[in-house]
This record gives sequence, structure tokens and C-alpha cells, in this order.
Amino acid sequence: MTGIEALDILIAEFTKLPGVGRKTATRYAYSVLEMPKEEVDCFASALAVVQDKVHFCSLCGNYTEGDVCDICQSRDKSVICVVKEPQDAMAFEKVKDYKGVYHVLHGALDPLRGVGVNDIRIKELLSRLDGVKEVIMATNPDAEGEATALYIARLIKPLGVKVTRLAHGLPIGSDIEYADEVTLGRALSDRKDM
Amino acid sequence: MTGIEALDILIAEFTKLPGVGRKTATRYAYSVLEMPKEEVDCFASALAVVQDKVHFCSLCGNYTEGDVCDICQSRDKSVICVVKEPQDAMAFEKVKDYKGVYHVLHGALDPLRGVGVNDIRIKELLSRLDGVKEVIMATNPDAEGEATALYIARLIKPLGVKVTRLAHGLPIGSDIEYADEVTLGRALSDRKDM
Repeated sequence: MTGIEALDILIAEFTKLPGVGRKTATRYAYSVLEMPKEEVDCFASALAVVQDKVHFCSLCGNYTEGDVCDICQSRDKSVICVVKEPQDAMAFEKVKDYKGVYHVLHGALDPLRGVGVNDIRIKELLSRLDGVKEVIMATNPDAEGEATALYIARLIKPLGVKVTRLAHGLPIGSDIEYADEVTLGRALSDRKDM
Repeated sequence: MTGIEALDILIAEFTKLPGVGRKTATRYAYSVLEMPKEEVDCFASALAVVQDKVHFCSLCGNYTEGDVCDICQSRDKSVICVVKEPQDAMAFEKVKDYKGVYHVLHGALDPLRGVGVNDIRIKELLSRLDGVKEVIMATNPDAEGEATALYIARLIKPLGVKVTRLAHGLPIGSDIEYADEVTLGRALSDRKDM
């Protein structure tokens, strides 16, 4: 506690950001005190405005400022890439190779934490399958992600839609010596002809 | 770039915080989207309010909400601890042993970067010396901090005020094996009787 109320309040607000503890929050708050007033006002209004303007795309569930996002409006709707979070879709956009659309589940099946089939956007995915040729399951390669991919694949396959899963294996630029056993095992079992 | 204007603006604002790059800023911005609306509004108003309410104490130059800070109002004015920044005063307050007041210079002498004698609050310090018994130079133990301490000490000593400097040596809990030569040399030359 700095003993200065307005500063303590701002420090407490900064600690709500992910991975920000008291020390980092204090550093941020002091830097705000040193910024020009107009800059701080821009910062405050950017915060206040973002939730008003940004909401979920009514089709894919990704963030957008309009009703339907740019990707859903302009891209190949016959391929859907299913991801857990909007951030994951953004990661794929950086690759620039993908020309299809996304479907954001906003979570992964996790019965132990009470996240069930009706808590993530599976129903919405099923309602989008008309005319779709391929669904790429791009959930995280962890227990919850795998379970979610498997569950959805079992629902979709009987409808005659091709379902694929992202490849697992060694990350590019990594070192075999330091790879974990599970990844290395997967890289071995999924080996490809050269 | 996420392609969502309001989100991109907020990400750009977060990168203005110290040590925050594009990746961390993006993470912060997405976490803001997931916060309840009231919480984001509190955050925005904490930012907007902080500079209006918090300004410099007219005596010591530390941050305060009033005209004169709590420390200057209530503590022993015969001892002044001279620090570079308000954050340094806060660090001393954590020790809880110090009962005197502070003087914040808001900088250290650094001729190469154009910071001269008139750019930091030295004049203000000299005008506070009436009735002062001791001035503790608590500037950083680096080139600029040492130069600043030395310069101020030479000004104050002729006025008959005792000037002291923080002790330099091995940090508590550190390992001699990994201590740098300068620190170790200083710890040796400043050794004390047991």
C-alpha cells in the first residue's frame, strides 16, 4: 500500500490483469502517473469503449465489431476450423495459409470443473454444417482439448462431414534431446514417408 | 493486428506500460474483454482519476493527494532521506525503521543525457535545510547516483549539516561466489569490527 488512495485503487485494478502481481501493478501505476494527461485519457477511454464495441460474431463466436465478423463474411464457408478461444483463431490468422472460417467453442469439455456439453458452443457448430466439406478440430493438444475433439468428431462424422485433427509432433526448431516422451512417441507413431 | 479496431487501440495503449510488448498487451486486452462490464468501468475510471487526484507534495516532491504529504506532516523533519524517485521512498517505507522525512530529486545528474543541476530538485532541498541535523544520500549505487550524492554532499556539508550515504556491500542472503568484483571490493574495503 502506498498510502495514496487513488494510486492504491489503480494498483488493485492492474492486478486484475493476467499474470500481474502487486510489484508489476505498482510499476504500471507509477508509469501512468508519469504519462501525459491526454495519453492517460486515451487509455481510459480505450478501456471503457472496448466492451461496448466488441462482441461475439453471431456465426462463429469470434470477437468482432459488427454483427458477423469479416472472416465469416468473406471466406470459404465449406471448411470450419474449430478452436477453443478467439485468441486461437488469431494465432491461425498469423499463418496466413488458412482460407476457411472458424468456430470458437469458448471452452473445452472438462467434467471435473463442471464444463459439460451444453456449456460450450457445440450446438451452434452443428447448426452450421450445411454445405460444409471439412471440420478441422484445432482444440489444444491436452486432455480437455483431445476429449472435446473426440466428442465433436463422433457427432459430426455420421453426418457425412470429413473431420480432421491438427498434426501432433516435434515443434519446428526444437531439439529431440529435450523433447518430452509423449510428444516424441507421437512423432514416432505418426511418422510419414519421405 | 487483430483486425478489430477497438481491440487494436486497447492493445496499443497497453504497450505503453513499462516492459509490456505486443504479446503481453494482447493478452491483457483479451482479458479485459472477458471481465464483467462494471469491473472494466472501475478500471477506466481509476486510470482517469489518478492523475487528477495525485500530485507532488509541495515540500518533499513525493506523490500525495493533499498539498503536503502525510510523511512531511507527521514525521521528524530533522532527518531528510534524499532519493531519486517516489518509488524509492516507498521502498524505504517498507523497512519501517526510518522515522525522518524524504526529499525526492526526480532524477539524477547525468550530463551525457542532458540532466544538469537545475533539472533535479536540488534548490528545493537546500531551501529545506533549516533545523536539519542529517541528510541521508539514498541515491542509487550507480554512476549517476554516486555523482548526484557527491555533488549534493559538497553543497550541504559547508552549511554544517551532517551528510551520510547508504552503506554498500553484499546483499543479505546473497552468495559471495556470485558477487560481482565491485560489490565484493566495496564490502572488503568497508569491513567493520566485530
